[in-house]
Amino acid sequence: MILYGAPSPAPNPRRVRMFLAEKGIDLPETPLDLRKREHKAPEFKAKNSLGQVPALELDDGAVIAETVAICRYFEETHPEPPLFGRTALEKAQVDMWVRRIEFQLMTPVGMFWRHAHPLTAALIAQHKDFGESNRDHVAGGMRWLDRELEGKTFIAGDDFTMADICALSTVDFAHWIGLDIPDECANLKAWHERVSARPSAQA
Amino acid sequence: MILYGAPSPAPNPRRVRMFLAEKGIDLPETPLDLRKREHKAPEFKAKNSLGQVPALELDDGAVIAETVAICRYFEETHPEPPLFGRTALEKAQVDMWVRRIEFQLMTPVGMFWRHAHPLTAALIAQHKDFGESNRDHVAGGMRWLDRELEGKTFIAGDDFTMADICALSTVDFAHWIGLDIPDECANLKAWHERVSARPSAQA
Repeated sequence: MILYGAPSPAPNPRRVRMFLAEKGIDLPETPLDLRKREHKAPEFKAKNSLGQVPALELDDGAVIAETVAICRYFEETHPEPPLFGRTALEKAQVDMWVRRIEFQLMTPVGMFWRHAHPLTAALIAQHKDFGESNRDHVAGGMRWLDRELEGKTFIAGDDFTMADICALSTVDFAHWIGLDIPDECANLKAWHERVSARPSAQA
Repeated sequence: MILYGAPSPAPNPRRVRMFLAEKGIDLPETPLDLRKREHKAPEFKAKNSLGQVPALELDDGAVIAETVAICRYFEETHPEPPLFGRTALEKAQVDMWVRRIEFQLMTPVGMFWRHAHPLTAALIAQHKDFGESNRDHVAGGMRWLDRELEGKTFIAGDDFTMADICALSTVDFAHWIGLDIPDECANLKAWHERVSARPSAQA
């Protein structure tokens, strides 16, 4: 089994590393050099046609791409501790929160990164006004998440789940590109301290 | 149990209706009038703070938002026929394909709709150049999907799954806003005919 990834600050490979650390699964990452465009090389695109990391290659050659799908595979093969919920309702609510984090927070962070950040300007055609407009969407998404965290320990409730992994890597990547948690978001800041203190956050 | 939704062409409520039809679950939709902004009313936002449909309210008052999460709930409570895969690998690959459809196809379709379509111009501030640039991303996504469908009956392989539901509603919504399947995409067109012929496609 080969787990293709890339070092931080790439947020998606970190999610898989955190997930494996929380599960106690020992599977070292095989890093690709994104600056050398190794993820766009024909040999790798034969495994994942989108040329993205992470990707998990099983021993029989089957490949699973997409961060959350890779983690879901390990949830099935290593159910404990559950990170996608136990009951039908919990499973649905963890999935709901993963999606909310992706669409409300990761999407505008990604759009700012692609369309407004100087590091990507050299690589792709940017729509700078649109990119800059995502600053407000990111701040708005963080304020919404802050309200939703009122009285809760973790994003989906009492238990640490995949939703926390997705949110932590998003908030940390946002910080790395200059988009910080708004000062007034006390719940979100407390949650961030709480999850950052877990050993898996170092993965 | 109350399923809040909205009539076509809204793509997300249709996904849940198709899913229920494939499962043989009889749960009529409770439609909200999106033009009257009923989904943004305080009573509804108390159920789903994002003010989005679909949303599923259980008898004990718990609410599940996000299309795929709602469908996952029904997959757990009504496992047959499986629409999210059976084995660990199948489950991961269906999830991978759902995500690929969402990120490669639904995201640029949504960005075109929000930032370039005349019907949304009255509602939100648009970044028109950026919006228009998504025409190419949508066509590129469809060409990629066309290549991926070579030799396959359905998107994730031999079985009809949630990935086909997500893709059908996306392709049909794209058509409704003026973004058609490129002429040369014979595999994608044949797939579209195949899934459109299923009774659930009328849901």
